[in-house]
Amino acid sequence: MVPTVEWKDGAVRILDQSRLPDKVEFVDCRDYETVGIAIKELWVRGAPAIGIAAAMGVALGAQAVKAVEFDAFRKAVWAIADYLAATRPTAVNLFWAIDRMKRRLEALQAEPIPAIKQKLIVEAQAVLDEDIAMNKAMGRHGSTVIGDGQTILTHCNAGALATGGYGTALGVVRAAWDAGKKIRVVADETRPVLQGARLTAWELMQDGIPVTLITDNMAGTLMSQGRIQVCIVGADRITANGDVANKIGTYSVAVLAHAHGIPFYVAAPSSTIDLSMPSGDKIPIEQRDPREVTHVRGRESIAPDGCEVFNPAFDVTPARLITGIITEKGIFKPSELAEKMRLR
Amino acid sequence: MVPTVEWKDGAVRILDQSRLPDKVEFVDCRDYETVGIAIKELWVRGAPAIGIAAAMGVALGAQAVKAVEFDAFRKAVWAIADYLAATRPTAVNLFWAIDRMKRRLEALQAEPIPAIKQKLIVEAQAVLDEDIAMNKAMGRHGSTVIGDGQTILTHCNAGALATGGYGTALGVVRAAWDAGKKIRVVADETRPVLQGARLTAWELMQDGIPVTLITDNMAGTLMSQGRIQVCIVGADRITANGDVANKIGTYSVAVLAHAHGIPFYVAAPSSTIDLSMPSGDKIPIEQRDPREVTHVRGRESIAPDGCEVFNPAFDVTPARLITGIITEKGIFKPSELAEKMRLR
Repeated sequence: MVPTVEWKDGAVRILDQSRLPDKVEFVDCRDYETVGIAIKELWVRGAPAIGIAAAMGVALGAQAVKAVEFDAFRKAVWAIADYLAATRPTAVNLFWAIDRMKRRLEALQAEPIPAIKQKLIVEAQAVLDEDIAMNKAMGRHGSTVIGDGQTILTHCNAGALATGGYGTALGVVRAAWDAGKKIRVVADETRPVLQGARLTAWELMQDGIPVTLITDNMAGTLMSQGRIQVCIVGADRITANGDVANKIGTYSVAVLAHAHGIPFYVAAPSSTIDLSMPSGDKIPIEQRDPREVTHVRGRESIAPDGCEVFNPAFDVTPARLITGIITEKGIFKPSELAEKMRLR
Repeated sequence: MVPTVEWKDGAVRILDQSRLPDKVEFVDCRDYETVGIAIKELWVRGAPAIGIAAAMGVALGAQAVKAVEFDAFRKAVWAIADYLAATRPTAVNLFWAIDRMKRRLEALQAEPIPAIKQKLIVEAQAVLDEDIAMNKAMGRHGSTVIGDGQTILTHCNAGALATGGYGTALGVVRAAWDAGKKIRVVADETRPVLQGARLTAWELMQDGIPVTLITDNMAGTLMSQGRIQVCIVGADRITANGDVANKIGTYSVAVLAHAHGIPFYVAAPSSTIDLSMPSGDKIPIEQRDPREVTHVRGRESIAPDGCEVFNPAFDVTPARLITGIITEKGIFKPSELAEKMRLR
């Protein structure tokens, strides 16, 4: 797979996913503002990937800070962090990664500014490397829920493209595939931004993993026909009670899976778990531009001019509909997640 | 509303719905083959409307038949009927309307060919006029299920555009609106062909009825937030046990409505009811071109080249998920439908 986000020659190189699958193009962000735009405009998306991009954005911004004294340097870096934290509200990995960079900055305060700048790059790189390692661990744990010959339904893109690499939900799929299981993925196209059609189908086809694309409204019918054995999705935020915010439409998939007795798993690294939030109804849900609904890919109009729309980017799936949460530390029931995480 | 299908100056004039909402354009079909293309290519769509178009197509084709003797004339008209019957497999109104024209032809066999030709036009016009009358009757019965201030979720387009005029599901909405109820429609965009975005939103906006467009995967979330009070959809075929074939995604809406305790109604004229078929699993489901899924409006590519897709145009909602079936004769429970219809 092509890298989603990387530190390259003093810039943050981001794969512009808004152009996939037509074009594989990279943007070299040379200032933190451009990293912010890349997050807002969905050039980079997926909770783990925007966390990585934000960490690298903080490191990138820090390089350009002129301050020679720590307090002024910190103040400038915090302003960069605040800017990046304001890009998107729902995925907690963004805030987790930015907080991690701020904590690292505090820990480095006794060191000379040039050394701090260098070590912030190292820290951002560590966020990326650890993300890939967590995905692979998730894959090892999670692949056990996929049986040989099964078909997995997924929604949106929780793949290599949503992470530093390998993927969360699709990392689990990759691990099952790599273990020799004959599997197939059914990908919801995931309107309005079509991450399933544009990204999930593309990345699985790149790896030669069988994939069938459907419109979002076909999932229930396939379930009723016995053609889906397990659902696996990613997450943007998991609250202490095991509720999960994820791409709009995830909730419907979970209700449909429940109605058909099909197991429904969420795969996410522990950086997605927000123990400070008791339940999903507290999660801020991003409302995006109506044009995402009235147009396809920003170009093709599909609705009358002036049509009213709703466009929440995420929804919340309650813990009761979730069979298990696959993390790098193992698979947990939603109800036991908080306890297991606090123990570690 | 503009007429969907009409007999005009010796031609069948069809509103080309594939161009809506950008352009309001009509095609004058001057031979029955063009009527067949109009049905296959979805210039005219919606179970009642394709029934009307097919009836008019039979009448149109009959005008051009050169035979002067009844047996030869009948043979030619039957060939036209067979051609039109092969255009789409799921909606039973198509076969119902064609059978009605064939029965009318039989009844006219003692008359001179020119008189038969004229009376076939009259019969096709009656199919149209009766459809509008049935829709209005359905509206009178059905509007009682919509309370003042309620929001109605609908899927696909079961409106004036799907019928001779006024609509089935949207006819019920219109009747409630005309009765002074302050209501709102939430329209599923209805991928892949986007009849909700392109047609339902457009026709309701034309009438000034408040409508909010959503992607299909948002319906469950709105239900969970208490923002939908009732679901009303159309039907392409209703079997003797009360199972309903309708646009792909209808089944998911019904499961979601059931899970949230929201009433789910189907509005359809009795020509949609196929008492010869015991249950929905026998209904032939049309599989359409994969390009409808991989592209939007035939133009905008949204998926990788060569991507596998499913594209069933319809699904079947079992009777147990249906609160009531609204017909021109009243509202019936799915389980009592066959008995009530046989009585009449």
